[in-house]
Amino acid sequence: MSASHPAVTLTALSGIPAIQPGDDIAAILADALEAGAMAPRDRDVLVVTHKIISKAEGRYRHLADITPSPRARDIAAATGKDPALVEVILMESRGVLRSRRELIIAEHRLGMVMANAGVDQSNVPRGPETVLLLPEDPDASSAALRVALGERFGVDIAVVVSDSVGRAWRNGVVGIALGAAGLPALQDLRGKNDLEGRTLKVTQVGLADEIASAAELLMGEADEGRPAVLVRGVEWREPPVAAAALIRDREQDLFR
Amino acid sequence: MSASHPAVTLTALSGIPAIQPGDDIAAILADALEAGAMAPRDRDVLVVTHKIISKAEGRYRHLADITPSPRARDIAAATGKDPALVEVILMESRGVLRSRRELIIAEHRLGMVMANAGVDQSNVPRGPETVLLLPEDPDASSAALRVALGERFGVDIAVVVSDSVGRAWRNGVVGIALGAAGLPALQDLRGKNDLEGRTLKVTQVGLADEIASAAELLMGEADEGRPAVLVRGVEWREPPVAAAALIRDREQDLFR
Repeated sequence: MSASHPAVTLTALSGIPAIQPGDDIAAILADALEAGAMAPRDRDVLVVTHKIISKAEGRYRHLADITPSPRARDIAAATGKDPALVEVILMESRGVLRSRRELIIAEHRLGMVMANAGVDQSNVPRGPETVLLLPEDPDASSAALRVALGERFGVDIAVVVSDSVGRAWRNGVVGIALGAAGLPALQDLRGKNDLEGRTLKVTQVGLADEIASAAELLMGEADEGRPAVLVRGVEWREPPVAAAALIRDREQDLFR
Repeated sequence: MSASHPAVTLTALSGIPAIQPGDDIAAILADALEAGAMAPRDRDVLVVTHKIISKAEGRYRHLADITPSPRARDIAAATGKDPALVEVILMESRGVLRSRRELIIAEHRLGMVMANAGVDQSNVPRGPETVLLLPEDPDASSAALRVALGERFGVDIAVVVSDSVGRAWRNGVVGIALGAAGLPALQDLRGKNDLEGRTLKVTQVGLADEIASAAELLMGEADEGRPAVLVRGVEWREPPVAAAALIRDREQDLFR
């Protein structure tokens, strides 16, 4: 297609090995970019699934090691889930918003509202008795990756650490940003005009969430095994804002 | 970047004029694709903002023509909104989920939960006293566009009619699919395996919503004026499903 049109390109990185606790994710991603002749440019965004960050951080929990609390046993009985898994979910949460058979919607300790507080049993290489937590601090992981990749390639690259989550009101998971660095994760358009010259009423865009959703088109949920996607062509003029800004304050939220 | 990597490319269409009621959107989009040397291929997805569909359908309402009901006046008093605007929102809705100062979250007559039931005052070329409703039937519009573009170019193209909406729990709007044709708007991965060979627990992906969010990266909320984006490289194996499947049944929804 003609190069004169505004365009965004997403390219999946290849050859990323299974990640072990302690692995240097920045070096692994940089090697994959180099091996793929995908040298990043200024303003590229590297989207990385949170799973490889969690795995490098060794954020596994072994359900056999967990002693469920009475509250975890109650919720387990109500939902049909493993009491030890429920205990891990509670340890990762500030609170449970809703639960029913096979489903717990919790507020993660970092504020995100998600099923099982992000505790995951899929794509975990140690059997169903081992679960994987979200990264300790996805915004910090994003910032560290941004610095390391920026140094390696000498460019100003942005990073998004992604997850795919369910939503209120709509079926199907979509990508969101758990962490972000180097771009306005929440884009503030206040003062901008619409096409008719009126000041915009919709003033905030979930830019990093949209980028994460775009990257999910290549990452897939199943066995594709594409944990990182390089995004080129996204434009922004606002200063960087971390992904924590995407989380709505509890007091501002009508659906808790 | 190397052509051997899985990639998705999004390209904005240029030169689309301001749309008038009665305009042939399919012909306008096809002309823009041709003028831009962007001939679509099989399995390309054309994402079109719902606004140009609504404008072609003439879905304007003039607030001066509206007589607010007592209920609209009550909600207007509580929210600080124009009573006539509230009446239009109620006419477009099955019900109001939440309201507070300057905000009404309603269930649109087609089932989507969104602010103001999608009734829009921005990018409407007739002054603040005119508002624009969502298209009459976005899935039907998508299907009609798909047929017309398929005939014009002789390809099997998919279509998504997009909007950008706010969400529970998270700040910032993101793209969603109001309508879709020719692709599985909701992608069912039941029976697929994860990387470790276990059956996936997350079995549904909001594919058309993710495509809409990706396209929003180029469309923008402000004065960019890019109402259509051609998406190439998204892969799917499932049969087509309309965007109505993305709406969670009220009985299945824990947040109404």
